[in-house]
Amino acid sequence: MATKVPGTQLYYDETINHHNPAPGQYGQIKLYAGSGGVDLGKSISEYLEIPLGERDIIRFSNENIFVKLQHSVRGQDVYLIQSLSSPLSDNILELLITLNTLKLDSAGRVTVVMPYFAYGRSDKKDQPRVPITARMLADMIQVAGADRYMTIDLHAGQIQGFFSIPGDVLTAFHLISDHFVEKQLTNAAVVSTDLGFAKKGRNYAAKLGMPLVVVEKRRTGNKDKTEVMSLLGDIKGMDAIIIDDECDTGGTMVEAVNCVKAHGARDVYVAFTHPILSGNAADRLASVPIKEIITTDSVPIPPEKRNKLPNMTVLSVAPLVAEVIIRAHEGRSVGELFKE
Amino acid sequence: MATKVPGTQLYYDETINHHNPAPGQYGQIKLYAGSGGVDLGKSISEYLEIPLGERDIIRFSNENIFVKLQHSVRGQDVYLIQSLSSPLSDNILELLITLNTLKLDSAGRVTVVMPYFAYGRSDKKDQPRVPITARMLADMIQVAGADRYMTIDLHAGQIQGFFSIPGDVLTAFHLISDHFVEKQLTNAAVVSTDLGFAKKGRNYAAKLGMPLVVVEKRRTGNKDKTEVMSLLGDIKGMDAIIIDDECDTGGTMVEAVNCVKAHGARDVYVAFTHPILSGNAADRLASVPIKEIITTDSVPIPPEKRNKLPNMTVLSVAPLVAEVIIRAHEGRSVGELFKE
Amino acid sequence: MATKVPGTQLYYDETINHHNPAPGQYGQIKLYAGSGGVDLGKSISEYLEIPLGERDIIRFSNENIFVKLQHSVRGQDVYLIQSLSSPLSDNILELLITLNTLKLDSAGRVTVVMPYFAYGRSDKKDQPRVPITARMLADMIQVAGADRYMTIDLHAGQIQGFFSIPGDVLTAFHLISDHFVEKQLTNAAVVSTDLGFAKKGRNYAAKLGMPLVVVEKRRTGNKDKTEVMSLLGDIKGMDAIIIDDECDTGGTMVEAVNCVKAHGARDVYVAFTHPILSGNAADRLASVPIKEIITTDSVPIPPEKRNKLPNMTVLSVAPLVAEVIIRAHEGRSVGELFKE
Amino acid sequence: MATKVPGTQLYYDETINHHNPAPGQYGQIKLYAGSGGVDLGKSISEYLEIPLGERDIIRFSNENIFVKLQHSVRGQDVYLIQSLSSPLSDNILELLITLNTLKLDSAGRVTVVMPYFAYGRSDKKDQPRVPITARMLADMIQVAGADRYMTIDLHAGQIQGFFSIPGDVLTAFHLISDHFVEKQLTNAAVVSTDLGFAKKGRNYAAKLGMPLVVVEKRRTGNKDKTEVMSLLGDIKGMDAIIIDDECDTGGTMVEAVNCVKAHGARDVYVAFTHPILSGNAADRLASVPIKEIITTDSVPIPPEKRNKLPNMTVLSVAPLVAEVIIRAHEGRSVGELFKE
Amino acid sequence: MATKVPGTQLYYDETINHHNPAPGQYGQIKLYAGSGGVDLGKSISEYLEIPLGERDIIRFSNENIFVKLQHSVRGQDVYLIQSLSSPLSDNILELLITLNTLKLDSAGRVTVVMPYFAYGRSDKKDQPRVPITARMLADMIQVAGADRYMTIDLHAGQIQGFFSIPGDVLTAFHLISDHFVEKQLTNAAVVSTDLGFAKKGRNYAAKLGMPLVVVEKRRTGNKDKTEVMSLLGDIKGMDAIIIDDECDTGGTMVEAVNCVKAHGARDVYVAFTHPILSGNAADRLASVPIKEIITTDSVPIPPEKRNKLPNMTVLSVAPLVAEVIIRAHEGRSVGELFKE
Amino acid sequence: MATKVPGTQLYYDETINHHNPAPGQYGQIKLYAGSGGVDLGKSISEYLEIPLGERDIIRFSNENIFVKLQHSVRGQDVYLIQSLSSPLSDNILELLITLNTLKLDSAGRVTVVMPYFAYGRSDKKDQPRVPITARMLADMIQVAGADRYMTIDLHAGQIQGFFSIPGDVLTAFHLISDHFVEKQLTNAAVVSTDLGFAKKGRNYAAKLGMPLVVVEKRRTGNKDKTEVMSLLGDIKGMDAIIIDDECDTGGTMVEAVNCVKAHGARDVYVAFTHPILSGNAADRLASVPIKEIITTDSVPIPPEKRNKLPNMTVLSVAPLVAEVIIRAHEGRSVGELFKE
Repeated sequence: MATKVPGTQLYYDETINHHNPAPGQYGQIKLYAGSGGVDLGKSISEYLEIPLGERDIIRFSNENIFVKLQHSVRGQDVYLIQSLSSPLSDNILELLITLNTLKLDSAGRVTVVMPYFAYGRSDKKDQPRVPITARMLADMIQVAGADRYMTIDLHAGQIQGFFSIPGDVLTAFHLISDHFVEKQLTNAAVVSTDLGFAKKGRNYAAKLGMPLVVVEKRRTGNKDKTEVMSLLGDIKGMDAIIIDDECDTGGTMVEAVNCVKAHGARDVYVAFTHPILSGNAADRLASVPIKEIITTDSVPIPPEKRNKLPNMTVLSVAPLVAEVIIRAHEGRSVGELFKE
Repeated sequence: MATKVPGTQLYYDETINHHNPAPGQYGQIKLYAGSGGVDLGKSISEYLEIPLGERDIIRFSNENIFVKLQHSVRGQDVYLIQSLSSPLSDNILELLITLNTLKLDSAGRVTVVMPYFAYGRSDKKDQPRVPITARMLADMIQVAGADRYMTIDLHAGQIQGFFSIPGDVLTAFHLISDHFVEKQLTNAAVVSTDLGFAKKGRNYAAKLGMPLVVVEKRRTGNKDKTEVMSLLGDIKGMDAIIIDDECDTGGTMVEAVNCVKAHGARDVYVAFTHPILSGNAADRLASVPIKEIITTDSVPIPPEKRNKLPNMTVLSVAPLVAEVIIRAHEGRSVGELFKE
Repeated sequence: MATKVPGTQLYYDETINHHNPAPGQYGQIKLYAGSGGVDLGKSISEYLEIPLGERDIIRFSNENIFVKLQHSVRGQDVYLIQSLSSPLSDNILELLITLNTLKLDSAGRVTVVMPYFAYGRSDKKDQPRVPITARMLADMIQVAGADRYMTIDLHAGQIQGFFSIPGDVLTAFHLISDHFVEKQLTNAAVVSTDLGFAKKGRNYAAKLGMPLVVVEKRRTGNKDKTEVMSLLGDIKGMDAIIIDDECDTGGTMVEAVNCVKAHGARDVYVAFTHPILSGNAADRLASVPIKEIITTDSVPIPPEKRNKLPNMTVLSVAPLVAEVIIRAHEGRSVGELFKE
Repeated sequence: MATKVPGTQLYYDETINHHNPAPGQYGQIKLYAGSGGVDLGKSISEYLEIPLGERDIIRFSNENIFVKLQHSVRGQDVYLIQSLSSPLSDNILELLITLNTLKLDSAGRVTVVMPYFAYGRSDKKDQPRVPITARMLADMIQVAGADRYMTIDLHAGQIQGFFSIPGDVLTAFHLISDHFVEKQLTNAAVVSTDLGFAKKGRNYAAKLGMPLVVVEKRRTGNKDKTEVMSLLGDIKGMDAIIIDDECDTGGTMVEAVNCVKAHGARDVYVAFTHPILSGNAADRLASVPIKEIITTDSVPIPPEKRNKLPNMTVLSVAPLVAEVIIRAHEGRSVGELFKE
Repeated sequence: MATKVPGTQLYYDETINHHNPAPGQYGQIKLYAGSGGVDLGKSISEYLEIPLGERDIIRFSNENIFVKLQHSVRGQDVYLIQSLSSPLSDNILELLITLNTLKLDSAGRVTVVMPYFAYGRSDKKDQPRVPITARMLADMIQVAGADRYMTIDLHAGQIQGFFSIPGDVLTAFHLISDHFVEKQLTNAAVVSTDLGFAKKGRNYAAKLGMPLVVVEKRRTGNKDKTEVMSLLGDIKGMDAIIIDDECDTGGTMVEAVNCVKAHGARDVYVAFTHPILSGNAADRLASVPIKEIITTDSVPIPPEKRNKLPNMTVLSVAPLVAEVIIRAHEGRSVGELFKE
Repeated sequence: MATKVPGTQLYYDETINHHNPAPGQYGQIKLYAGSGGVDLGKSISEYLEIPLGERDIIRFSNENIFVKLQHSVRGQDVYLIQSLSSPLSDNILELLITLNTLKLDSAGRVTVVMPYFAYGRSDKKDQPRVPITARMLADMIQVAGADRYMTIDLHAGQIQGFFSIPGDVLTAFHLISDHFVEKQLTNAAVVSTDLGFAKKGRNYAAKLGMPLVVVEKRRTGNKDKTEVMSLLGDIKGMDAIIIDDECDTGGTMVEAVNCVKAHGARDVYVAFTHPILSGNAADRLASVPIKEIITTDSVPIPPEKRNKLPNMTVLSVAPLVAEVIIRAHEGRSVGELFKE
């Protein structure tokens, strides 16, 4: 029977060689993983049946990062997997240095795969005399040597416009929403944690055939202080599926859980693409009554945090990313994975 | 008595020379207006007591646009005012050609003042195989010769990140909200026409001390078909101030008016920064019961459309733009106009 | 018997696959036509037996142009056909937006085919404080995403130097001159409409074995006012073949016809590559005694203009462009088409 | 009595400080001369009463060129005078190296003054597989550090479009034509040596109120072989003023002299802006009956060539260049020098 | 009596205003210090009598770095002081983000002052498939918004060529060598720790009138393993001044001390510009018999390391940097500080 | 028996097609030689069994250089061989012009092979107000159209960082050192002519199992004046192998020979990669007692110089370059040639 590729709207196409595709116009697929992409890299490598390229990443005592590839990538179609996650500054510099290394070794084409793109909230000057770091980061990545980029669920879609190279911006929407489709919840609502996320929340609501409820919250100052205001819509007696793109300190999420509970919600599910889980976010999430936390492996979760959250389900984006890599390599449509 | 500068949070500072400032490090202020900025350019010129630069703009029979400056701008601090409004493609090309003319005449610094920046909705790839025209436009403006840009109420703040030159992104928020402050409405609500505009709507609600109501609408396909869904919040028996950043075909606005009326609203006010009013938008707006339409002169409104809307108040952004020009020229803070 | 490829000096090489060539290092040939290149695009498509790519080009009521490709061009060798003709500004912007779309969809290589390149007369600062729009346009095309360009009979050969990408600049010289070779006119002269075109006129004269006559004309000001001065050479009792690169308002051509007639010319032929025919050019041409007007399909001619000129022969540049596309795709010499 | 500034249409403006102007927004005027600009540099220096900057230019035995400035140009408005004349490759590299030196010393603005711009004939691909060296040279000059350029009588006006920096392209037209105005020749004609120069020849004819005659010549192959064909217009019994932009090998000029003489010309004057005089051009010019050769100091003429041509008048472009430098420095119109 | 400016060869010029200079063509001097430049920034600020600009640097729990300037730098001549020292990756990113902030706030000119430039040893590909991180870092700094740079004692002078913006590369040579001149050591030798540093060591030897001795050492692999080989020259019974550009882990230095001691050296002095002192370098240095360690404040030394080294003298580079800032601001020669 | 590829550490791999490899992703290998690379080009051509591309290089009487390719390089993998040697400025410009020609003919990839890269000593600002010509040259090469570069024994490894394109920087170390390995000298030392070359000298010493001796020399001023100081190490009664990267005027080499002879050396061998041999270097080398001079064909040696040096052995770098070209073309590791 036909099986759907997880995270897509596509059934496995048996006429395509899903594994270890032939060399194309940009050479052979070569996979490399940075320090922030080791686990995901392994999953993608296994899916594609292509080994991860060996490389040394050394951090000298003076904190200089040094990269050396064990094998040549001349004229090859390289995919460098690195999540821009903790330790953030090190991972960003390591990414840039590795891109430089690949470029100087005459790679045929370099696609940087950043399942999580950091600094997404620094995407505009909403007050005077502040930077637009997300744009600067995009510039850096291009200058360092990337020909293309791939990422998942950007904080704002407009960040695509910060790059002048082509990119594949994927979404965990199908992965996460399919998970809830299988649950066959009745009498449930999708809850957006924020007015700014309400449009994306509506997509979940539409697919799941549920109403949309919005937590109206106000964020003040630069230091994550948030203040819940009210609830637009009704959750009383219903199951709540709280949706967000990422979970950073957990503060927003915890307040949303408390808010829907205070308004009479029954079971509470929490779903977000990127498990940043900075500081004591895991403890916070563990302290409130959540039936299940659904997230992905776009960001590596350290075991000590993972262990605090037995109610967390981690869906892998590896099949999705791997199928896109095949299509990018073979010059086939990526959009058709999503029936677009 | 102290008078506030319209559109700012600042009272006139008598110690500053508001008019015709002295030459600075980038030369003397020179004002030029393109075809889409003539009226606003005149207002700014009058405020600053600096004449508009004479230029010929010729459209040959083969539709080639030709620009010639009557006087040299060598080493001068030039501000070119052009709204990216109808006829849109002509106005964009004229802008680029004029920028090229200014650059080749060795201008000291060129700031392009686009009160309305077009293609703001083409700011991301939300489906495969589409352009990000707003980014491309930003690139074009820079390549043509702009050193800085100035604009008002971008469709998305992230469009700032599409430019790599510095810019002053202003807002008509103070201008419009002050207008409503003076009205001293009691028992009124701010209505956002769309989930995507709800965060900006909240700023109005907060300043005016009113609740926020959101029209949940769904836009489908590429051809402006919209479908109103429901109302988040209560408007029954209250005055409604419907807020949006622009009014294009009027469809969204008319539906919002009908929606709040259907939900029992009393007087309906409509406010938007950019009066695009394309097609028969003026007729549409004239066909529904609106007490007052508040907008600005960021986009020129043809008299035949203006005449159909006797209930429309047009607030001028000229003082705001002019005060920013002075500050940009003199190397002073623009943020302080807004107490930031 | 061997047949010559129209517009070249080459006989069909039966050892080459003229149709639907195999994928090369830049992918498979993909043809797209913009609004200004639909008819020519179809002709090229038929010649190459490769279908035109499906794309939506939408012009919203706010005049924003939107492009969407129906199929992916990832890693393909794309040729985008768009004449920079009326409506000029729209066609230029549509071209740039489509280039951006192709680039962001990760095309392997994009060649922009502009049979007519506009703004060719804005190619230098021959007075102070004017733009060099042709250079700016070349910059825009590159920034938007073109890797190569193809065009026919530039107003000045130097415009090639405005591009920093490679290009194929073709000529309709062989197409038009072969047409006259077949006529076997005796006692005829080639007439250049202008001193500036005299060198190109001489090439026609040399190939056809006819003397060269030059209409010395003076163009004053920016508004197409022209003033015929005199005739360098003798046309009395001879047939005249008046040659120019384009026919815009028709003014120059009509004056040339009148001038040679006044100097005693017998039959008058008129030939030009680009039928701009702006304003009432068709009426003007219809009002003077021309035996045959020879032009090409580098610019689409609206039926209402076409119908006014029954004496007009339109030679197609499609075989020429198509043969060049094959050679560019396969990495073969284009020069050999012209025995160069 | 008012005196006209040589080479312009302007009378000395006593209200302007023609000498040693005050520092402006780009610093103080600093003049430097390269090896190909020493004599002209001295003339400009004397006119402006500003000393030439001291610099060492060393050519090591391994032919490496080394430049060292004796004094700092930090934040200064530098004008570097270098004619792209013999030894050509050395002079070009010296120019680029000096530009790099000025840029790295943090000059405020660098204007490269190239009275003669070489490679002007390599301005288009008129055959396959050849370079466009003039464009490449323009790119090199910008990359090396020039902010602006100044030059005189480009081979083709379109070369302006090869630069993306602003420039002042001057002409020796006024200088040379004024020289002939003073002669008050009656019964004379302006003779263009070539169809391609006929349009510029017409400008001389118009100013001097004389008819225009064109030598129709054909240049074949890459190796300066020329072949005179015929004369368009009548010169019999008239004085001839043969005009060209440069005199390289002298071949064209000598053929033109012989041609007009053969057609019955009386006195023959020869005028050209750039005295390249390569190879034995001086001998050639000395071998034909020329009443007077008029040229400029845009290119240095070695004494041994100068001495062979006692009938040569060298008009200096120094006042013209110097007045433009003043205006560029002070942010004033250059066009007004020519009543434009 | 005249006092020499520390670190230069110049006596205080009383005719120059050393403090708080007037606005120049790039605006007023504004000083900002990043996290790695606070102490040095304060010293420079005190020397120039110009306050450090107030800025917020926030590190969110998700490790995103955020910068906000308290006052506008529009049109100002900004100097941003940041040592690329520990925490290295954070300091590099903070530098880039601050540069972006300054650029977007329309600074007149931004000079980045990096007393210590990191990654200096990653300046070439001395094995295949490694990066040239120093070049990449230079590119990043330019892309982020620096107009000029200033640094001290680069690991290799060629790193200057990695920048395409102008820079002032200073040296602590005068500062350190003057310190030894005052000591009036007799019977001493300068010891270079490495063949690669021998040429710089010779400059010290020449100035101090001492012989040069070289420790021939071999560095193997990427992990700081070093192996002392032998001593070129004689140190027996003499005082040794061991010189290097930086002291990182201390390993090289300690081996050099042991080596010269083993060869019979009397007192041992150790001098280096940049006190990286990574890992347990301070302990290592404390464990060998050094009479005095001379270094500078180019890199901040944490108190806990400082306290372990009572024999360390820290000379300040602040007067040197401050005098260069004055000259860069006023468009005066920096070279004259060093009689060059 | 297995044969080693000269200049590498690799034995011929019989499984690789060393000659005339198949087309790859950048097209077919095409070899072109500039005026400074004719002889080496022929050797490489013979090794690869691929003919040198025919091209015309014309130097007009006005010293303009003109290049025309006889055959198209569209979509081909082009290697352009040009040594930056005498006549230096002409060869540099010819290189840039040829690159431009190749780029404009739509080459698939262009690798510039410069066995000797000039201006290597102008690689830093070691005094104020001087250029960094090596960086500028790298920029020029990239702007002109090179995609990759290949060179041998750069003066400083950091010059690699002056390019932002990838490159293969080879060394003649194996070629030269293998030559000495075969000699089986006993009781010999490697002599570095300079402290700056001592690190490279040590590599020779290590491979040959000999001690290292350094001539300590001081270069003063810009004009090649050198002054030998002393000898670090002992050469008495031993054979001396004097090593340097290039031999320019021969001055350094001659002094080194005299110095080691004065210190009692037995036989003296001299080895350097690049035989610049400017001025009367050949006479100088012939005047001192050298047993054998070993060099390479990286720079063409004119026969009149070659004939003066019967004791000179010229090893060819052609096999080395050719093997690297094969590997670059086929996307294989170059490092493995050197067991790296």
